Formats: sequence, structure tokens, C-alpha cells
Amino acid sequence: MQPYELSLAAAADAIRERQLSPVELVDSALQRIAQMEPQLQAYVTITAERARKAAREAEHEITAGRYRGPLHGIPMGVKDLIDVAGAATTAGSRVRADHRAQTDSTVATRLAQAGAVLLGKTHTHEFAYGLTTPQTHNAWDPDRVAGGSSGGSAVAVAAGMATFALGTDTGGSIRVPSALNGVVGLKPTYGLVPRHGVTSLSWSLDHVGPITRTVEDAALVLTALAGHDPRDAASLTAPAVDYRPTAGPDLTGLRVGVPRDYYFDHVDPEVEAAVRQAVDQLRALGARLVDVQIPMTRYIQATQWALMVPEATAYHEGTLRTVPELYQADVRILLEAGELMPAGDYLRAQRSRTLMRQEWAHLLEQVDVIAAPTVPATAVKAGQETITWADGTVEGVSDAYVRLSSPANITGIPSLSVPVGQDTAGLPIGMQLLGRPLEESVLLRVGHAYEQSLEAMISL
Amino acid sequence: MQPYELSLAAAADAIRERQLSPVELVDSALQRIAQMEPQLQAYVTITAERARKAAREAEHEITAGRYRGPLHGIPMGVKDLIDVAGAATTAGSRVRADHRAQTDSTVATRLAQAGAVLLGKTHTHEFAYGLTTPQTHNAWDPDRVAGGSSGGSAVAVAAGMATFALGTDTGGSIRVPSALNGVVGLKPTYGLVPRHGVTSLSWSLDHVGPITRTVEDAALVLTALAGHDPRDAASLTAPAVDYRPTAGPDLTGLRVGVPRDYYFDHVDPEVEAAVRQAVDQLRALGARLVDVQIPMTRYIQATQWALMVPEATAYHEGTLRTVPELYQADVRILLEAGELMPAGDYLRAQRSRTLMRQEWAHLLEQVDVIAAPTVPATAVKAGQETITWADGTVEGVSDAYVRLSSPANITGIPSLSVPVGQDTAGLPIGMQLLGRPLEESVLLRVGHAYEQSLEAMISL
Repeated sequence: MQPYELSLAAAADAIRERQLSPVELVDSALQRIAQMEPQLQAYVTITAERARKAAREAEHEITAGRYRGPLHGIPMGVKDLIDVAGAATTAGSRVRADHRAQTDSTVATRLAQAGAVLLGKTHTHEFAYGLTTPQTHNAWDPDRVAGGSSGGSAVAVAAGMATFALGTDTGGSIRVPSALNGVVGLKPTYGLVPRHGVTSLSWSLDHVGPITRTVEDAALVLTALAGHDPRDAASLTAPAVDYRPTAGPDLTGLRVGVPRDYYFDHVDPEVEAAVRQAVDQLRALGARLVDVQIPMTRYIQATQWALMVPEATAYHEGTLRTVPELYQADVRILLEAGELMPAGDYLRAQRSRTLMRQEWAHLLEQVDVIAAPTVPATAVKAGQETITWADGTVEGVSDAYVRLSSPANITGIPSLSVPVGQDTAGLPIGMQLLGRPLEESVLLRVGHAYEQSLEAMISL
Repeated sequence: MQPYELSLAAAADAIRERQLSPVELVDSALQRIAQMEPQLQAYVTITAERARKAAREAEHEITAGRYRGPLHGIPMGVKDLIDVAGAATTAGSRVRADHRAQTDSTVATRLAQAGAVLLGKTHTHEFAYGLTTPQTHNAWDPDRVAGGSSGGSAVAVAAGMATFALGTDTGGSIRVPSALNGVVGLKPTYGLVPRHGVTSLSWSLDHVGPITRTVEDAALVLTALAGHDPRDAASLTAPAVDYRPTAGPDLTGLRVGVPRDYYFDHVDPEVEAAVRQAVDQLRALGARLVDVQIPMTRYIQATQWALMVPEATAYHEGTLRTVPELYQADVRILLEAGELMPAGDYLRAQRSRTLMRQEWAHLLEQVDVIAAPTVPATAVKAGQETITWADGTVEGVSDAYVRLSSPANITGIPSLSVPVGQDTAGLPIGMQLLGRPLEESVLLRVGHAYEQSLEAMISL
């Protein structure tokens, strides 16, 4: 096994035990990038020299007994929407061709303080406003979409080109590419991870979170990222928590909600089968399955769009007037559409969100987590614009990919996507676990239990 | 002195000492209503029988040793925007002709629990969407406007037709009529007093608060009103506080900010002189005056309107389509204008508000309170539509009346209006004290010190 193949937790253990040097690990990841990047295109910028220097410093510190914790010396990628001082933040756009961050985002500062090593900036759908990331290829089939908007981050982690990565999620942009590339993605509770220094798509829906290869790894990264920063007006003052799951795979007493509607409508049968099998596995671990009804499903799509579209346009109103030709057509059309939206539509969406938050809070009194597909279909071919469902309904690819993930953005509740197998084409399938605000530890415990049980089966 | 003339604090002392019966006090207030209401028109509904019954119950309880506190047996008026079970809430509108509240608003419940006695519902500008309350006459000159939108409440308190009253304030609607009628009005910190059961004008700007004849009385009422209610999504969880000012009139060490701009621009010279004299009085009490600059003054009006107009329209969108003819023309035009506002304007106002909050927070690090005129002019003649300033500028009456009060709505900071004399026409002038969020006790202490010092001068 090459170092780049190690999970974050395993690499951290090896580094702490001085069985692995950060220099070896970072070199291994850089070699993997050299090998895979030509066909996958996960990175917009690779900071190889900076990474090697940081790895040597980490090695030096650790050798000198100044071990900082599980992220020390771990190579990672950062979505190119997130500022890292000294590196460009292009946001995947020609509009930002000349942009260079002067200071770190809060999350970049926190990762640097934890000793993580930046390998580079990963591709995003332009300004995170889309669900495919056309620059990047799916890690399992380069003819298929990476998913988005954090496509580069998910592909980098899936292909071994980073031990972990950061993404952002406004309607599903961490979880969608994680599901489509067979990795773990966590959208935390709204406000838990500060967004200072992160280019905004829609400030009332934007989240930053980790993309990793295991649930335990997501917990390790979240522990470094979470915590108050007054420079993000929405930042919560919840006290710091160590999210690393410690319990075993026994889920006795846990109530898992299984939606009877919405989350299994217009879902590919292979996706549904894999998710239901994973849910059965949770039951086998002791969880009690509870049939639940998802509230206000008719309002989800309208609410997501009516919140996102005008907020996105407000952010871009200056450049939309001065350099509209620099935007990709798909994004420019969405931004221009936002100029036509009446305030009443936005206010209706705000009110709808308030009601949805209340209804979901009631729902999450009945169960501890809800288990559902992350996306209704696996990765489509690059360029494919629609999905045709069994009943003949035709749905836009982006509409389909965002449909099951956006409720967690509207309500702000945490959502964790975990891989639960592949379809017959060999493409990964994701299950999302949704939980109460600030109960990331419950989601991580359940996801970790599921992963452990799979490992146990494999080792039998 | 008749019982209706007593301040709340004095009446409460007399009731507690059994020198005054709630029945006497309520009867005195009802007689005063019978005398003054024909010319002032402060009340839309007078609940005389209910009041007499409540007064007898209060008397009975107090005689039996079950004294509830300073509001027990005190007669009061409630703005007709606020639900009281069993009474109509017309909101001053024909749209609400058939409305009858089934349950109490939170504030009505709290006042009832404190033992206060409802005399009736007071006139409001239709749906609180205006600053004159045309149904009602100024308590000092019936040919002049009451101010609004809580005009009935302010006139009732000023004329002795209620010992205190409740108002609501979205751009100044407690403080403006309080200033124009020579009474005390407090707009608390946003979220301190729950709005459950109160007809909304603009939910991000709406506040409920007391109108009284003394600052101490405002403190007594606020103590009963404040505190969390989860049914108002904006309700703060700040712990309960007794706001009654206990300190004497010494203000040594207090820093009073005196705006060098905005608050003294386009202000009637007699208003300015009275406010500056009151500020000098604060200095005489030991306060240190600090020259301060008001931030982002060019954005105040646009921010207030761009927040209020679409939120108001959103609330009325149903009836605006079904029964537009039932609205008064001034209000219908504003509501219809809201349908045309783009979401981008609303979002710009939200962002502007965020920046204004930050700038005001910085400003309020330099000083403890800011002293300024409440309104730039005293009560205009009924029907007067504009004010012409010395430099020839012509300003709409409503624009002028809301101009100095709206910053506290946009930022959510508390603002207390206290009477500071009359102009040569004998019309009252108000000074507002603005403070840090949740520092009502500081405003009340300063206002109380000012009042005490005046009383001391009068008694010399």
C-alpha cells in the first residue's frame, strides 16, 4: 500500500508513531497527482514546492516532539472558492483570473495551525453555481461528470490525489460529488464552520465542510474546522467539540427515519436498492427503523431556488454589469435571471424556510437520524443534460442532483454522505444521513458504525 | 389630583399601600375617557365593563393579600394591532372589520398576568403603515396630528386616558407619537419583547414596547413585557431583568455621544435648542459629552424602505388581491409599490443593515448612549403633507418623522424618547437616547436621572 492510499486516521497514526514521514506522504500524493491529474483534472493549481516545504517543516516539528495532532503533515486539497494566502482563488471563473488572496480564509488558517499541508486548489463549477464541475472527470469513469460544485475536491480524494479536501455546499455541492465519486462528504450545521474568506454563492445557504475517504476522517477534519469566528455573521458560538467517533458499531436504541416519500421518488432502482441495503445494515447493527413523512416537499425546489438565485445575483451585480462576457453561459443566465426576481418571491422563500425548519425540527424529534439517497442517480455522462425516469418524466441533471440534498441547506441541518456500494456500471452510490442541528457527532457515529460493519464483513 | 393623573409608579405605590383602589383608578380613567375621547379619538374600542370587572378582581386579590406587583390594577390601552382574546383587532383597517382575536398575544398575556387592566384598544395608522394616525387628534392641540403609527396609545397616555399603553415601532411608531404628545416611549432591543399575536408590518423591523408618562413607568412595563417566547422566531433568550432604575441622578462617568451630523440636519431650531439644553442637563449631572459621527447616513432611508416595503407587501399579498378597495389609498399605494420591488434591492438593504449594525456597534464602543432629537419637528397640522426647511428643502411629513427614529429599527438597538420641553406654540419636543443592544437599563437610568433633575428644579 502506498502512503497516498492511507486514510487520514491511518496516516496520522503512522506519522505520530514516526513510521511515516510527512515528506514521504506528501511526495506520494504529489506522485499520484502527477500520474492521475492528466486524465482527471482535479486541480486548478498545484502548490508542489510549497507542499514539500511544509512537509519538511512538519517532519522537523514532529521529530522535535512538537506533534500538533492528527492533521499534522497530512496533504490536502482546498476548493478554489476558499482563500489561501499567496495562492490564486479563481472560483473556476475567468472573472477571477487576476485574483490572488492576500490573507487566509478562517478554514485555511485553522488547517495550517493543525499542520495540514496544502497540495493545491481544486476545481469548482464556476462560482460554485452548478452541479457538474465540467473541468474535472469522474474518478471512476473519466467519461462521466465529477459532480459539483466541489468536483475537484471529491475527485482528488477519491483518486488518492489528496488525503482529504475541503468543499463548499449551497444545495449539495459537497455531498453530490462525494456520492458520485464514492467518498465521504459532510455538510455541517449552518454556521458551525466559518465562511470568512470563502467566495459566497448564497450566504444563507453556504456551508464549508470536509471531503474524506472515511467517516472517521471527516470527524478529524471537522474538529479542526468548527468553532466561532465573528467575521462570519452567521457563525455559531457553539463550544468546540472533538468529533472523533469512539463508540463501536452497536446502534441499539438509535431511531433511523426512513422517508416514505420524496427521497425515494424518481430514484434509480439500483441507487434505491443500495441505500435500502445500507439501511438494513443499520438495523442489523441495532437501529430501529421508523417510517417518516418528509414535510412540505412541494416547496423544497422553489424555496431553494428563490433563496439562492437573488443572493447569488446580489453578490455578482458589479461584475455582471462590467464583464458579463467572462462568465460561462450557464452561470451568466442564472445570474441574469436573478435580476428579474421580485422581492416577494424571495420573502415567500424565507417564510417557507422558517416553516420548513420548524417542520423538520418536529420530524427530528421522532427519530435520531434520517437515512436517504444523497443523489437519485449515479454519475451521468459528461454533456448529458437530462435524466429520464421510469415513468417517462424528464428531469434536468442539475435539478436531479440537487433535489435530495437541498433540504439540508434550506433547513441548515447537518448531512453526511457515505458510500454504500456501486451500480452495475461500477459507479458509486451515496447514502446521506440527516440529523439535528449541531448533532454531527450522531451522524458521524452512525456512519462510522456502518463503515466498521462493512470492514468486518470484508475481513470475514 | 385625580387618580388618572398619577404616574404608574405613584399609582402602584398607592395601590400597594391600599391608599388607592384599582376600582377608583379605573373609574377615574374611564371618566377621563368619557370627557376627552370625543375630541381626541384615541380609542377604537373601549372595554369599560371588562375593565370594571378586572378592577374589582384586582381589588379583591389585593385585599386578600395577593398583590402581584406594580402593574396590578393599573389601567392601560393596547394598540389595536395587538391581539387581546375576545376583543377585535382591526389594525385600523376595514380589511380587518370582522377580525376578532381568539387568543392573547404574548404581551397581552404577560400584562394580564401582571394584573394590568385593559381599558380598550387604541387607534393605529392603518396596519401601522404611516406616521400620523389620522383618526386621532394630538393631545396638546386637536388640530394637529397625533403622530403614528401608535398615535392612539400616545394620546391616551398623554391625556390621562390610560396610565400606560402599548405601541409598536417599525420605523419610529412608538417614539414619534410619544415625542409629539409629550410622553415617554421605549423601543426595546429587537427581539427583547415577543411579537407573537401582533399584526406584522415588517417582521425584521417590528418591535413592541411601552408608552408611559415617566421613564420609571416605562421600566416597570418593560419588566413585565420582556423575555423569551419561542413563538416569535426573533425572540431573544436573554434572561429576565428588573429594569426599574434605582440609581440617583448622578451620571458621573457616563459618556453621552452628541451627533455632529444627521441628527441635527434639517431639524427645527426650537427642537434642536430643547434637545441641546437637555444634553447640557445631562452634562450638569456629570455626563461627559462626546462628539460622534453617525455612520452610513446616506444609506439610512433607502435601507429602511427597502426592508419595510417588500416585507409589508408579503404580509398583505392575499388581501391586496382579494379586497384592495378596503385599504386606505396611502397604504394601498405603498403595498402595491412593494410588488414591484426587485429582490436585489431587498438584498442590498439586508447587506447594508449588516454593515450598519457593525458600524453602530463600533460607535457604541466610544459612548454609552447617544442623545438626539426623536423627530425633527413638532406635531404638524392635520392634513399638512410636507415640511419646508430653512434652506428651502421640502420634505414629506412621514419622511421627516421617520428619519431620525429608523436607525434604531434597522440596527435593532434600543431607543428611549423622553419629553424635553415645548416649542413656542406649546407643542412637546422629544429627545431620544440610543444605546447598546440589551442595555435598556442604561437608557432608563439616564432618562430617569434627567427627569429627576427636572423635578428637582421645579420643586426649587
